[in-house]
Amino acid sequence: MRFQQLLQVRRLASAGATTLMRPRPTTGTTGTTRPTTNTTAGITTTVRTMAGSGAPIPELTQITDNVQRGNYATLTDKDVAFFENLLGKNFALTEDLEGYNICFLKRIRGNSKLVLKPGTTAEVSAILKYCNERKLAVVPQGGNTGLVGGSVPICDEIVLSLARLNKVLSVDEVTGIAVVEAGCILENFDQKARDVGLTVPLDLGAKASCHIGGNVSTNAGGVRVVRYGNLHGSVLGVEAVLANGQVLDLMSNFKKDNTGYHMKHLFIGSEGTLGVVTKLSMLCPHSSKAVNVAFIGLNSFDDVLKTFVSAKRNLGEILSSCELIDERALNTALEQFKFLNSPISGYPFYMLIETSGSNGDHDEDKINQFIGSGMERGEIQDGTVTGDPGKVQEIWKIREMVPLGLIEKSFCFKYDISLPLRDFYNIVDVMRERCGPHATVVCGYGHLGDSNLHLNVSCNEFNDEIYKRVEPFVYEYTSKLKGSISAEHGIGFLKKDYLHYSKDPVAIGWMRDMKKLLDPNGILNPYKVLN
Amino acid sequence: MRFQQLLQVRRLASAGATTLMRPRPTTGTTGTTRPTTNTTAGITTTVRTMAGSGAPIPELTQITDNVQRGNYATLTDKDVAFFENLLGKNFALTEDLEGYNICFLKRIRGNSKLVLKPGTTAEVSAILKYCNERKLAVVPQGGNTGLVGGSVPICDEIVLSLARLNKVLSVDEVTGIAVVEAGCILENFDQKARDVGLTVPLDLGAKASCHIGGNVSTNAGGVRVVRYGNLHGSVLGVEAVLANGQVLDLMSNFKKDNTGYHMKHLFIGSEGTLGVVTKLSMLCPHSSKAVNVAFIGLNSFDDVLKTFVSAKRNLGEILSSCELIDERALNTALEQFKFLNSPISGYPFYMLIETSGSNGDHDEDKINQFIGSGMERGEIQDGTVTGDPGKVQEIWKIREMVPLGLIEKSFCFKYDISLPLRDFYNIVDVMRERCGPHATVVCGYGHLGDSNLHLNVSCNEFNDEIYKRVEPFVYEYTSKLKGSISAEHGIGFLKKDYLHYSKDPVAIGWMRDMKKLLDPNGILNPYKVLN
Repeated sequence: MRFQQLLQVRRLASAGATTLMRPRPTTGTTGTTRPTTNTTAGITTTVRTMAGSGAPIPELTQITDNVQRGNYATLTDKDVAFFENLLGKNFALTEDLEGYNICFLKRIRGNSKLVLKPGTTAEVSAILKYCNERKLAVVPQGGNTGLVGGSVPICDEIVLSLARLNKVLSVDEVTGIAVVEAGCILENFDQKARDVGLTVPLDLGAKASCHIGGNVSTNAGGVRVVRYGNLHGSVLGVEAVLANGQVLDLMSNFKKDNTGYHMKHLFIGSEGTLGVVTKLSMLCPHSSKAVNVAFIGLNSFDDVLKTFVSAKRNLGEILSSCELIDERALNTALEQFKFLNSPISGYPFYMLIETSGSNGDHDEDKINQFIGSGMERGEIQDGTVTGDPGKVQEIWKIREMVPLGLIEKSFCFKYDISLPLRDFYNIVDVMRERCGPHATVVCGYGHLGDSNLHLNVSCNEFNDEIYKRVEPFVYEYTSKLKGSISAEHGIGFLKKDYLHYSKDPVAIGWMRDMKKLLDPNGILNPYKVLN
Repeated sequence: MRFQQLLQVRRLASAGATTLMRPRPTTGTTGTTRPTTNTTAGITTTVRTMAGSGAPIPELTQITDNVQRGNYATLTDKDVAFFENLLGKNFALTEDLEGYNICFLKRIRGNSKLVLKPGTTAEVSAILKYCNERKLAVVPQGGNTGLVGGSVPICDEIVLSLARLNKVLSVDEVTGIAVVEAGCILENFDQKARDVGLTVPLDLGAKASCHIGGNVSTNAGGVRVVRYGNLHGSVLGVEAVLANGQVLDLMSNFKKDNTGYHMKHLFIGSEGTLGVVTKLSMLCPHSSKAVNVAFIGLNSFDDVLKTFVSAKRNLGEILSSCELIDERALNTALEQFKFLNSPISGYPFYMLIETSGSNGDHDEDKINQFIGSGMERGEIQDGTVTGDPGKVQEIWKIREMVPLGLIEKSFCFKYDISLPLRDFYNIVDVMRERCGPHATVVCGYGHLGDSNLHLNVSCNEFNDEIYKRVEPFVYEYTSKLKGSISAEHGIGFLKKDYLHYSKDPVAIGWMRDMKKLLDPNGILNPYKVLN
């Protein structure tokens, strides 16, 4: 039977660009772009995540988490007058601030009384200089799509929104280098790049809302890291405003620039605690002429690993995503969202493998070779492969709805970890064993190609028994394997007490020294990253 | 005629893997690996470079460059006894130190009285702790193949050789992640990677001598950056020993690891002035099944640019090198090294374009499409393309001998700059005009795909008139275009007075603060990077 399927694959492959291992349902979502909801969630939190418009407004985090306010000045009318004078009243907001105070997951709620919306780097500089002298705490905010409470105030910090710094300043189609302001929405940036045949080497669920400056400040990951690497490689230059208002010009439009210390990296992934990114240059690859997606079913994690190795070997330079979804994660999403259609069912593991290449015929050939040989060896059981943009989107939709499916109806303990691939999935089985019937679903999905697992433990409501079985075990387990307790979401407010599981005291000590050097008054994004 | 050639290309392409646009001479160098002499030189220096075994031993740099010795302690017998006790007499050398004191180009000569060769990170730590307490200055040294005098003492610094920390600790063929000690020679590291089907994403002329730790410490560039990016993207983790002897463990085996500040980047490209890299992990791509090289002739730099854009579009994901050589640079090498055979001649510009892919047939198809369309448009005049390993090496040999050809017989002012591609070659013409008959050769070559130009001005001997015409003009010109005055070679000793042409005072001020924080006594690699 497998052999017949294989023959069918090859026969269809020679007939056209879209290859179906099984007939696919034609119903489902349609459209020309990927869905853009913030669905890559995998946060670590021990309280209920309450995403969705219907979720209630949470209590103030300062109260729920018993946060001791730092020794900062309190905002006065005189301060507000200064900022109104600097920016104009329209850009120094003191009313209707809820959207700025509450995080995407409605887990964190601050109590800021002032939101500032500068329109230039010079205004950002003037704001920070003033705040530093007055010892007023500030939280930089981009699209506020972060998942660890890094972009909202914890107490009464002033919110510094980068939303008006939203221009794409230049895109060079020859070199692929784009210069963009921090507040530009990722999708808008990508569209400008696509207009000249390029693409931004970063793609994630929140792309319709998140800002490129926030992406850089959090070293955002997403589904293309397996191909294009992380932002430390793609970002060529950064302009950042320091706590004292100094503008640090580390802009560069070159892949090769060895003039002194490479300090820009301090602002990539430090979550706005060392400086505020206002501008950056990024290397954008050419858009791929052909994009294909395969959705395949496998019988064991061992087969998943073998298929990943085969994908790297056979697809080589065109492999652009390699995602894993286990059966329980997929089924939860399918039960929750009836509009989703999975082309295959009944397997313990599923992989979504995407290719992006410059020649559709060549890519199709490689994909068929990859799938055919995987089926011959019995590693791949069944699946669908397509190059049709609408169908590509349908398959991506399945992957992207998985996180939402898990948090929609039940309480969910969620973890975003990097683990050695050989041990990648064990923790899901171990956790299922530990939780027993207390948990309704224990599942795993994520960016297999980057060793990044989203582990989820669901139950009907917060359950102290499960909590104790899950934490700190999950961190200790990750730490023992020298894994990362935060693969792509960062530390923010929610994970700062767990940092020591992935970094030793010497490293954390130097992080503190770095913070003290660059922000001696600690006004930038307090209560985050370091505890 | 072009059309006939094009037909020939296509006819040959369909007949086999090696395509010749013109018959190629069969004589020349042979072998299975790329040449490994340090031939990517493009240093900035106003004194004669004296590479080659026959060059005389230079005067002490402290004298020639009038260097004021820093306020460091002077080595005593007691100090030597401490180190001998720590490492054993065989690894605390006090005699025959010339090779450690003189730089590769025989331009810089220090006067160190002690070379230490630790065998473990703990020994590196003990050495630095002692030196820091005693205020003894130290220069870390890898393969000593640097081109800006960064790896040799300037006065009497102790040489800390990493040569014994030379083990490849692990190579994971599934994830592509390798862990290696700093003193491992790049070629040896690459061989270990190739043993399991991977390759180190860094290739440069000095690979038979340079150490991977030195590569990381200098953020070495080379000929593969156009494909794999620079080391900030490839290096996943670093272990560095700080000036006070603390071991900073920033090792990570994951592409995604957002646990705190990304401090490892401070040690990538800071040339041993902030810490000594002792170990690192690196992401290694799979070896390519097919490697092809085209060597093509073009009539104008405008055609070069068009061909580069076409290469990015048509070759896409398989493009792995894109090098430029101008006519004068090529001819100088051909005159100097009679064993070189250029398959074509008579064009003002030449490009070496390499592809590396996972499917030889597909790659050949893409290359033929690229060349055929370039010839049809009249952008590519003639050339050779081959996938035969021996012939690939022959063509690379031409590119790699160009720098040596220029310094072999004449005095050479050499610059390693990044410039916007649209202005990339203008400076060569401008400089030729400025120098007039005073210069024997003014030429340019380099890594076009990374906007990295090696500008060379040759004359029979050092000529003050030319010097004044070239400097500081070349830096001012680069600075006005917001270029980089050191693309890949770093700052070291030779360029520290020019840093301000590419970095503003605020950035340089923060570099000083960073240095002061991490190395308050300034014992690590003094007289380098910052003046």
